[in-house]
Amino acid sequence: MLEQVKTGGVGIDEAMEKLRHLPFEDLGFARVDHHRQIRRGFPEVIFCPGKTTEQVIAIFESLAARGNNVLATRAKAETFEALAATGKFPSARYETLARAIVLEQKEMPASKSVLPIVTAGTADLAVAMEAKVTAEVMGQRTDLLCDVGVAGLHRLLGYLPKLNDANIVIVVAGMEGALASVLGGLVRCPVIAVPTSIGYGASFQGLSALLTMLNSCASGVTTVNIDNGFSAAVTATLINRKIDGAAQGT
Amino acid sequence: MLEQVKTGGVGIDEAMEKLRHLPFEDLGFARVDHHRQIRRGFPEVIFCPGKTTEQVIAIFESLAARGNNVLATRAKAETFEALAATGKFPSARYETLARAIVLEQKEMPASKSVLPIVTAGTADLAVAMEAKVTAEVMGQRTDLLCDVGVAGLHRLLGYLPKLNDANIVIVVAGMEGALASVLGGLVRCPVIAVPTSIGYGASFQGLSALLTMLNSCASGVTTVNIDNGFSAAVTATLINRKIDGAAQGT
Amino acid sequence: MLEQVKTGGVGIDEAMEKLRHLPFEDLGFARVDHHRQIRRGFPEVIFCPGKTTEQVIAIFESLAARGNNVLATRAKAETFEALAATGKFPSARYETLARAIVLEQKEMPASKSVLPIVTAGTADLAVAMEAKVTAEVMGQRTDLLCDVGVAGLHRLLGYLPKLNDANIVIVVAGMEGALASVLGGLVRCPVIAVPTSIGYGASFQGLSALLTMLNSCASGVTTVNIDNGFSAAVTATLINRKIDGAAQGT
Amino acid sequence: MLEQVKTGGVGIDEAMEKLRHLPFEDLGFARVDHHRQIRRGFPEVIFCPGKTTEQVIAIFESLAARGNNVLATRAKAETFEALAATGKFPSARYETLARAIVLEQKEMPASKSVLPIVTAGTADLAVAMEAKVTAEVMGQRTDLLCDVGVAGLHRLLGYLPKLNDANIVIVVAGMEGALASVLGGLVRCPVIAVPTSIGYGASFQGLSALLTMLNSCASGVTTVNIDNGFSAAVTATLINRKIDGAAQGT
Amino acid sequence: MLEQVKTGGVGIDEAMEKLRHLPFEDLGFARVDHHRQIRRGFPEVIFCPGKTTEQVIAIFESLAARGNNVLATRAKAETFEALAATGKFPSARYETLARAIVLEQKEMPASKSVLPIVTAGTADLAVAMEAKVTAEVMGQRTDLLCDVGVAGLHRLLGYLPKLNDANIVIVVAGMEGALASVLGGLVRCPVIAVPTSIGYGASFQGLSALLTMLNSCASGVTTVNIDNGFSAAVTATLINRKIDGAAQGT
Amino acid sequence: MLEQVKTGGVGIDEAMEKLRHLPFEDLGFARVDHHRQIRRGFPEVIFCPGKTTEQVIAIFESLAARGNNVLATRAKAETFEALAATGKFPSARYETLARAIVLEQKEMPASKSVLPIVTAGTADLAVAMEAKVTAEVMGQRTDLLCDVGVAGLHRLLGYLPKLNDANIVIVVAGMEGALASVLGGLVRCPVIAVPTSIGYGASFQGLSALLTMLNSCASGVTTVNIDNGFSAAVTATLINRKIDGAAQGT
Amino acid sequence: MLEQVKTGGVGIDEAMEKLRHLPFEDLGFARVDHHRQIRRGFPEVIFCPGKTTEQVIAIFESLAARGNNVLATRAKAETFEALAATGKFPSARYETLARAIVLEQKEMPASKSVLPIVTAGTADLAVAMEAKVTAEVMGQRTDLLCDVGVAGLHRLLGYLPKLNDANIVIVVAGMEGALASVLGGLVRCPVIAVPTSIGYGASFQGLSALLTMLNSCASGVTTVNIDNGFSAAVTATLINRKIDGAAQGT
Amino acid sequence: MLEQVKTGGVGIDEAMEKLRHLPFEDLGFARVDHHRQIRRGFPEVIFCPGKTTEQVIAIFESLAARGNNVLATRAKAETFEALAATGKFPSARYETLARAIVLEQKEMPASKSVLPIVTAGTADLAVAMEAKVTAEVMGQRTDLLCDVGVAGLHRLLGYLPKLNDANIVIVVAGMEGALASVLGGLVRCPVIAVPTSIGYGASFQGLSALLTMLNSCASGVTTVNIDNGFSAAVTATLINRKIDGAAQGT
Repeated sequence: MLEQVKTGGVGIDEAMEKLRHLPFEDLGFARVDHHRQIRRGFPEVIFCPGKTTEQVIAIFESLAARGNNVLATRAKAETFEALAATGKFPSARYETLARAIVLEQKEMPASKSVLPIVTAGTADLAVAMEAKVTAEVMGQRTDLLCDVGVAGLHRLLGYLPKLNDANIVIVVAGMEGALASVLGGLVRCPVIAVPTSIGYGASFQGLSALLTMLNSCASGVTTVNIDNGFSAAVTATLINRKIDGAAQGT
Repeated sequence: MLEQVKTGGVGIDEAMEKLRHLPFEDLGFARVDHHRQIRRGFPEVIFCPGKTTEQVIAIFESLAARGNNVLATRAKAETFEALAATGKFPSARYETLARAIVLEQKEMPASKSVLPIVTAGTADLAVAMEAKVTAEVMGQRTDLLCDVGVAGLHRLLGYLPKLNDANIVIVVAGMEGALASVLGGLVRCPVIAVPTSIGYGASFQGLSALLTMLNSCASGVTTVNIDNGFSAAVTATLINRKIDGAAQGT
Repeated sequence: MLEQVKTGGVGIDEAMEKLRHLPFEDLGFARVDHHRQIRRGFPEVIFCPGKTTEQVIAIFESLAARGNNVLATRAKAETFEALAATGKFPSARYETLARAIVLEQKEMPASKSVLPIVTAGTADLAVAMEAKVTAEVMGQRTDLLCDVGVAGLHRLLGYLPKLNDANIVIVVAGMEGALASVLGGLVRCPVIAVPTSIGYGASFQGLSALLTMLNSCASGVTTVNIDNGFSAAVTATLINRKIDGAAQGT
Repeated sequence: MLEQVKTGGVGIDEAMEKLRHLPFEDLGFARVDHHRQIRRGFPEVIFCPGKTTEQVIAIFESLAARGNNVLATRAKAETFEALAATGKFPSARYETLARAIVLEQKEMPASKSVLPIVTAGTADLAVAMEAKVTAEVMGQRTDLLCDVGVAGLHRLLGYLPKLNDANIVIVVAGMEGALASVLGGLVRCPVIAVPTSIGYGASFQGLSALLTMLNSCASGVTTVNIDNGFSAAVTATLINRKIDGAAQGT
Repeated sequence: MLEQVKTGGVGIDEAMEKLRHLPFEDLGFARVDHHRQIRRGFPEVIFCPGKTTEQVIAIFESLAARGNNVLATRAKAETFEALAATGKFPSARYETLARAIVLEQKEMPASKSVLPIVTAGTADLAVAMEAKVTAEVMGQRTDLLCDVGVAGLHRLLGYLPKLNDANIVIVVAGMEGALASVLGGLVRCPVIAVPTSIGYGASFQGLSALLTMLNSCASGVTTVNIDNGFSAAVTATLINRKIDGAAQGT
Repeated sequence: MLEQVKTGGVGIDEAMEKLRHLPFEDLGFARVDHHRQIRRGFPEVIFCPGKTTEQVIAIFESLAARGNNVLATRAKAETFEALAATGKFPSARYETLARAIVLEQKEMPASKSVLPIVTAGTADLAVAMEAKVTAEVMGQRTDLLCDVGVAGLHRLLGYLPKLNDANIVIVVAGMEGALASVLGGLVRCPVIAVPTSIGYGASFQGLSALLTMLNSCASGVTTVNIDNGFSAAVTATLINRKIDGAAQGT
Repeated sequence: MLEQVKTGGVGIDEAMEKLRHLPFEDLGFARVDHHRQIRRGFPEVIFCPGKTTEQVIAIFESLAARGNNVLATRAKAETFEALAATGKFPSARYETLARAIVLEQKEMPASKSVLPIVTAGTADLAVAMEAKVTAEVMGQRTDLLCDVGVAGLHRLLGYLPKLNDANIVIVVAGMEGALASVLGGLVRCPVIAVPTSIGYGASFQGLSALLTMLNSCASGVTTVNIDNGFSAAVTATLINRKIDGAAQGT
Repeated sequence: MLEQVKTGGVGIDEAMEKLRHLPFEDLGFARVDHHRQIRRGFPEVIFCPGKTTEQVIAIFESLAARGNNVLATRAKAETFEALAATGKFPSARYETLARAIVLEQKEMPASKSVLPIVTAGTADLAVAMEAKVTAEVMGQRTDLLCDVGVAGLHRLLGYLPKLNDANIVIVVAGMEGALASVLGGLVRCPVIAVPTSIGYGASFQGLSALLTMLNSCASGVTTVNIDNGFSAAVTATLINRKIDGAAQGT
């Protein structure tokens, strides 16, 4: 039977209503999606590689003009310096380790839950910091637990009770990435695994850790792209907000 | 400073207390983890490939004896027939499309939230069914939305309001797997993307869809292994339980 | 500047009008896209792998009921036999080499132009036949030129004048796939290259031919998936229709 | 039966006539193909990587001496500066973003049709510019539509009517490259998909986008090499010329 | 300075003496290396794949005639049946799970040390059994510890004291293979890691486990080929013999 | 300077004379290259995979009708049986191990030189036999030396003087393929290395041996496709013919 | 039967005793595992890549404060200079070729056995030196044998008697890595194979040598990661210690 | 039957005689193989990458002291400058394009035959030059034919008669590498194919051309490593020498 789609009382007409008035701003080289804050709960974020400094600054200005917090990831120090030199964003700061430019101009209510970000090694810290900065700019309280990889498992065990209090845990690991599976077998909550490109030889720039995490024998582990601390943090934030919201009856 | 780890008042000693009394059952060829229900919130699940029929049945019996619901994934029909022939589990059933054996002997409270499982094509249905059966045996209510891939995007649009009501959405797609990104850009909640091995040639048994999902330009998308409907469902269930629990003040 | 998109006098509202009334039919396991004929110029085609025989037949019936020609690709002979056994489509036929089920019930005007389909070897014939059947069911006149690979280049040269009369040429080649580059350097029109999985060892199931075609030093060569005669034919048909249409002033 | 090939009245002898008088110029390190303009409808183009500056200049001079427009792709700024320093080509210009040297000395009639070049992100702009410059030097009118990727699909929808007016559309996308499939499902004309190396981690320098495009569930999508804006533009131009020519009865 | 090599008083002449009298037997299709027992401490072993049943039997006879224990790995049951049907080796037996034919006709002194063979899952048992059979036919006492993977780490912990008594431990694991790293971080002795092809999707037939093991952040882990229980056992045996020998002052 | 190519007094016109009268036979599904015997010194050979039995027989007949020896490689026994059943080629025979059909109806003068074909293991014999049959049907005398791989290097050493008498040596090896390098370092003549798909796990169907051979630290080693005994034999034959011919002053 | 694990009289409780008192030091960005010396027999080693100079120095200080020998691998000269500039470790030295910082402050008893480290080429020396420095800092006497690859096998033969005296041999080789197999076939003891990234083209940064070693037809060969001289040395040291210990009755 | 190997009257004893007196020179970091000239017909060649300038110079001196011509490949200009600065080799020269250092101090008789080296593009010239320099230092006369790739096949055709005069042809090609197959189908002699890393995107640093050449449908084509002009030249030289020698009755 051919049907006009009616799903739970909602038809395509209404779906279109959702899409048709969505605003964006055409900068020529970019179409800034000002609707993303409403649609997805957080504003568009600037991924810097492949963009010229001028393009980054123009998009930054466009986003900042809406009053949102602005985040630019994978930014070079030079890009931040050029941005700072415009004098327009005195409160913008550069997070060196995370390679992120942050402008916080809108107060976010602090999350009820705390998001643990766990790294296997010290060298995974840059990726973990990208996750941390991203989550914090979206209002999450975070707890960074660094260098507790499986080569010395006892370093992790004392933190298990704390990790079990979390709604979700982000695990950041390079080399063989085994920490995600081990933690996935020990904690109650889901694990978001971030493979890093730390390693050499047959790590193939993070491929080894990525495959490890995808093949985790512990269920409840999902994976993001290599070195993608940003996406892990967004996902964790979306989940934590749901849970915090549910606890508040919203 | 060298320290005895004390994190939030919890030391390694206490962590060890958590681990030391964990029960398991030694069948020789398997060590059944009877503690998993407590530790992770769901009992051990039998992954059938590589196990003999005798081994699957023995593990099945061991798990069933605890009174839990039992799930065996990637099971052949012959395995179910052998299990049925034992006469011990009259209520066990075989889910043909999902290739799963299910024994439901413990009533699970129905979830408050509904979990949408969306497929790009009809051929992705087997993987989606594995997700559906897994989620349901863990008490989730599910909603299967089949064949709404990007080749005919209008088929998806009418369901957006409904999908936006969900806490989390599972997207199952083979070939180029673009549906995960598209949906990830349209809905408010996180997306768990399941690449499938459906396709041919340069799909390389699901590699294409996997890479697509890992590289999603839409944030909030995390990925599981190719064809791993099971793990997607476990993760979604863990998240939904947290949210339902928070709503009930637990 | 934030804008309501107005591009060439057309706004999002009107775009939505295009999408909102698009019909499809919900079979549960499939959502048949009956709008595709209008939107893309040809009806939905059934890709059989991963679908049960019952599903293929049901989709076939749904498509046939609209009066369109119906094409099912990668179909097993058994599937056709089951379809034939329904007695509903006496004029449906099975193209053995192409592994396609064809139902022609709507007369298509014969194309003005002829579409050459060239294969490097005899073993590439199955893929070429898929292209041929697809193009013909869409109204194209085709010309199959088989086994003119570069190991005996003189076999090709006599056909160059004819090939130069074409609007577009489909080249089907496995092993090293060099024919696409060679032909691309000799003819005036674009070449659609179809790598096949014919070969062994380091052909890696068509990867070698695929890479060859993607790296063609002759420009004007575009590539489709390994063994994807279908998509090559659809693309060639769309182009030929444009040209035939332009010649007729439409 | 052994035959002297006679195909449509044309034999190998005549084919040889076509090849035997083809001129080229031997520069020692290069054999400049001056016949390409006649055979393929556009002059040889200089692909700069792997050539010394002296070689590029010498080939440039050889091509320019014929009065054709000259295009050198993937050129470094230094190469252009050295070329400019010869003082021989005062009207040559360097297209920074496209990394192309262009010498327009032969007026090309403006194409009747307009060629849309669509990018998923701002970072794909360099590849899109290579396509744009190439198409324009061959006489095409182009329309660049930048940053309408699937993370914010509404940015694309307003342009659909315009895209549907085109004979062919070039889609340029990195990361997961989903835009090609989505657009392929929405427009009437064929899509030439250009994967870009934009991305990180498991994008594997464009492999992810390439596989996505090759596996597109939307038919009518063909693919060129990663970052190969040039070849996409050549193909699109050849097709547009056919259509414009057909409309003019040629 | 050009030299006649004299290293520790041993010249090439003497090295040649070692090689020149090495016996082998020419069967036409095989050259059986009867010297291997002396040179390497164990006789040649028959790797069955790619050999005809007749060839396997002939090599088996050649080896057995020397009075050594004979081992044929990756043997099909049919091959054993054909061997048994010759009536020549009444004491030969077939190890079903290990897929090995064993003829023990020479008493090996039982090793002083015990070799632990640890598997992550039940499905890794076949590979572990190949290792066990191989080690035992070479005189090792073994201890098989099955299904103690990281999804339930507590199943492993009780065995640590025992594992720490070993000279070397063989770890057999598929999927993500994390057990090798975890165990490598916990025990005092070296670990020989055997990746298995158990898994699906992105395990790519054992590649995932292989990369995990090669990239182990725990040092002291070396790796053999996927599913190669045989080579792991040989290596472990060579090491154990050295240690047992040293303890006996030999 | 633009030139009419004149190289050593030979122009394109004359080159065309070479190509224009080249005969071939159009069977519809195949264009049999009857000129190959003249152009390349050996007739076209039938590669069976992907061809139907009917096609193989028809091409076989076409080639046999010229009086040449006919070779069909990778043929199934069934194909030979069907060919034999035609009763047309009573002297055709099937080489089981080589999987080749051979029809010798034209006496080839025996080569002056002997071609050694060396295998690392017994399991490489099928590929070596394809090389042997191919070389012999082209008139070469061959010497098969089987199972002298590097695990027992002394088995090879006695044959070095003989191998050093050869013009060229074919080495056939699977697994790690080290024999090609070792032999390449010991003999005076070039080595044609044939990787085989023998092995398992990380041999990746011959990829390991292929890479080994391509990376040989011994120079003078060239490589053919995995399992391609045929091409190795053709190359060796072409070289031996040149040398035999030179010795006879031709 | 559900059991409290009792294996050889040792329960989980006692296993926990082993883990519970394990000390580590929390530096914020690192958790230095001071227990590793006891647990694994050697102190934690600093892998420098991905760590800032400040982090390396802080961890170095933490480890040095325990009185152990300290080793930092893959260290840049600048890092050593910064460390030296602190004036705290006057006896620390930089091993240029091995890229290692070494602080020897605790006398290690010289090993009874000598560890041969053999390289195929001169270019493999850096990796071999990492192995040598690592083994020596752990008390091993080593013997470096450089450039005896299979292209000139006679260079190796004179050293066979000496190599046969060893307990274990480390083989370091790039390109095709055949030396590991060859040596594995000649010596009595196990071989630890270290593939190096030396090579070009199809060596794929060491992949070729890695696959060669994993697929070695000689048994008794185990493999570590590409360029991982460190792990090979640790493994060899652990084995040598066991043997030396056994000889001394410990 | 166990045998003392007697093959054509030559036993292992005699084989050992061949190996035992082979001289080499121990430089510590290198063992220079002075016997290679005798054994393989050309002296050892220095592959520079991974060697320090000091090491290259020392090996160069060792080789030069024997009076042979010396060749160092993949040498940086700086290395040559350092070598020149020693003042010891006034007649050494640096071949810039080939990146080779050449010392010709021993007159080689000019070869009777001429070796054609054919490139597909100008950018392949560096690799072709490495082949040319190598062949010439070994006494070959060469003929370089540049930029005759398949995008303009007519550029090649005029040279066919000349190429057919050759004993063997070297083909150097990047991108899709189709020239090797095309030439292999046209000439009578064998073709040595050298894939180059010229290309971009899906050429994967020469992998595409390598696979093309390995899968050539034209037989008589063998392949060397990517960019390995050196090995192609050595092989071609060995073959040409055999043929020239045979013509002279040696």
